[in-house]
Amino acid sequence: MTEDYLKIQKQGVFSAGGTFQQAAGTFDPINGQMAPAGQTRHADHASVLYQLPVDGNGHAMMFLHGYGQSRTGWMSTPDGRPGFSDIFLKKGYGVYLIDQPRRGEAGQSSVATQIPATPDDQNWFTQFRLGLWPNFIENTAFPKDDASLDQFFRQMTPDTGEFDIPVITSALVAAYEKSGPAVLVSHSQGGVPGWFIGMASENVTGIIAIEPGTFVFPEDEVPDIIPTKYPMPVQGVGVPAKDFAELVKKPIAIYFGDNIPSEPSNVPAWDFWRGVKQLANEFVATVNRHGGDAKVVYLPDEGIHGNDHFMFEDLNNQEVADHMGNWMAERNL
Amino acid sequence: MTEDYLKIQKQGVFSAGGTFQQAAGTFDPINGQMAPAGQTRHADHASVLYQLPVDGNGHAMMFLHGYGQSRTGWMSTPDGRPGFSDIFLKKGYGVYLIDQPRRGEAGQSSVATQIPATPDDQNWFTQFRLGLWPNFIENTAFPKDDASLDQFFRQMTPDTGEFDIPVITSALVAAYEKSGPAVLVSHSQGGVPGWFIGMASENVTGIIAIEPGTFVFPEDEVPDIIPTKYPMPVQGVGVPAKDFAELVKKPIAIYFGDNIPSEPSNVPAWDFWRGVKQLANEFVATVNRHGGDAKVVYLPDEGIHGNDHFMFEDLNNQEVADHMGNWMAERNL
Repeated sequence: MTEDYLKIQKQGVFSAGGTFQQAAGTFDPINGQMAPAGQTRHADHASVLYQLPVDGNGHAMMFLHGYGQSRTGWMSTPDGRPGFSDIFLKKGYGVYLIDQPRRGEAGQSSVATQIPATPDDQNWFTQFRLGLWPNFIENTAFPKDDASLDQFFRQMTPDTGEFDIPVITSALVAAYEKSGPAVLVSHSQGGVPGWFIGMASENVTGIIAIEPGTFVFPEDEVPDIIPTKYPMPVQGVGVPAKDFAELVKKPIAIYFGDNIPSEPSNVPAWDFWRGVKQLANEFVATVNRHGGDAKVVYLPDEGIHGNDHFMFEDLNNQEVADHMGNWMAERNL
Repeated sequence: MTEDYLKIQKQGVFSAGGTFQQAAGTFDPINGQMAPAGQTRHADHASVLYQLPVDGNGHAMMFLHGYGQSRTGWMSTPDGRPGFSDIFLKKGYGVYLIDQPRRGEAGQSSVATQIPATPDDQNWFTQFRLGLWPNFIENTAFPKDDASLDQFFRQMTPDTGEFDIPVITSALVAAYEKSGPAVLVSHSQGGVPGWFIGMASENVTGIIAIEPGTFVFPEDEVPDIIPTKYPMPVQGVGVPAKDFAELVKKPIAIYFGDNIPSEPSNVPAWDFWRGVKQLANEFVATVNRHGGDAKVVYLPDEGIHGNDHFMFEDLNNQEVADHMGNWMAERNL
């Protein structure tokens, strides 16, 4: 597309996968409409919003959000510029945007839950490497005006049921059955089910993992825990060798933004990312030792500076997308 | 647009309105990142997904879902055909699709909640006039295959905080500040805050209320409760005369689908709709007595048959949309 507008051949939303429960008894619409007896509950599906461009490049991408997020983060930036979905549509990709089971518009859950209303914006401001509240990191590529930060905080949306990797994996495999082949772009917490989806679906043609929470390894090759100052351990997840062999068939790029310390940091959240980046290097070495094509992309090494954990929303998100686009094009993805 | 594809000038998602809380104390990213002290919580906003067509007709529409629903119901049908948002984009309207505060992708709530996982699909199958489980109403315009019904059930998504009309009204007024003038299309439960939004925002140019749950009346003109077999009363809501006078300035169409009984029904859910339709007629008479332009559209009287409570997703949704399009065009909306 060279026009300054989008040409959409087809768009829509559908649910993929999920479970089905039924209460004992017989439903009675006359005398017991609101009693559970005999009633079903369809739940634990993913919601898939797709847009397919006119004159596309023949490729597609599926986007899986991170913790406390929904697909909206791919659709716009906090300052109202085009998000990754628009950018990659203009590159000719079909885009599939996920709300994972029990999140956002895929809220119907097979398990009950409680949702607290605890203030925690500044926790995430720290974790996502925006800065040390109320100060932004000096070179940040985040738009620093108050309205943008307000929009960013409001992207958060809670789990409506327990986070469950097999449930998410199953729903995403079903989404891939409908989408056909597509590169999986995962973010943060979504990177963890992302590896399992990559092992489970032949339609995953490659993986771009944006600062994933952890990595999988063959069961007998899991590295030692990496000590950091963060309370949650940086630890690989062991999987059967035959599953890992499936993952290794797919090109993998792991993207990290800027301002990840190379030496231990006194900010626990930032020290966590130091550990994750170290583990990413061990993962890449393991994949490539098994014959794969994996790499870590640390954006500052590529001349792209200031990115936080949400590189796809930062002021330079076009530059980040172009880098990913080149990585895909080099692999015919 | 005459092409068989969509030309989108601009699209995206933003949050509108909402609240802001802050816990006492001072946030400490080094020693207390996860403690609430000093942290904020941005919540109770609406999420607004918009698409603006190339060469539009200069008008816009804002869509507000009903109980247990999100904006996805406007975006596709259960059998994968274009939803109302595509249909009205092709007519040249800008479309704004809402997830109300504490629903879907606007899940961040200022109040904690519990979400049960009670099976209740058949309750809604009855309430929404699809049929008496497992049988569909004979002339239904709902696609009767199993896959479509599965998709329909999976549209449901829970509240992540208490349903609160002032919270919703406030967020939607903020959405209207960003959208500018637009017809409000409300559905079911959404019809109730819909009247308050119509009274509160000058940017509401007209209201299409699809089977709204109830109606507002001047405080001294609220009709008697209409007795039905349903446990929830069919009852108007009194509002100050000066607020009602604001609503009366706007053209209003109230749409009902098919299969609403004209005599008391032994199915409580269907008897409820008999009462709501009767109350709609009293509302229209009241609005017009005060100098307004309101009407009830009962689709079977217009030769449009078989519609359930989700007329915008039925097999004849193009026909329903054309009827609404004509109603708007006649009023220069």
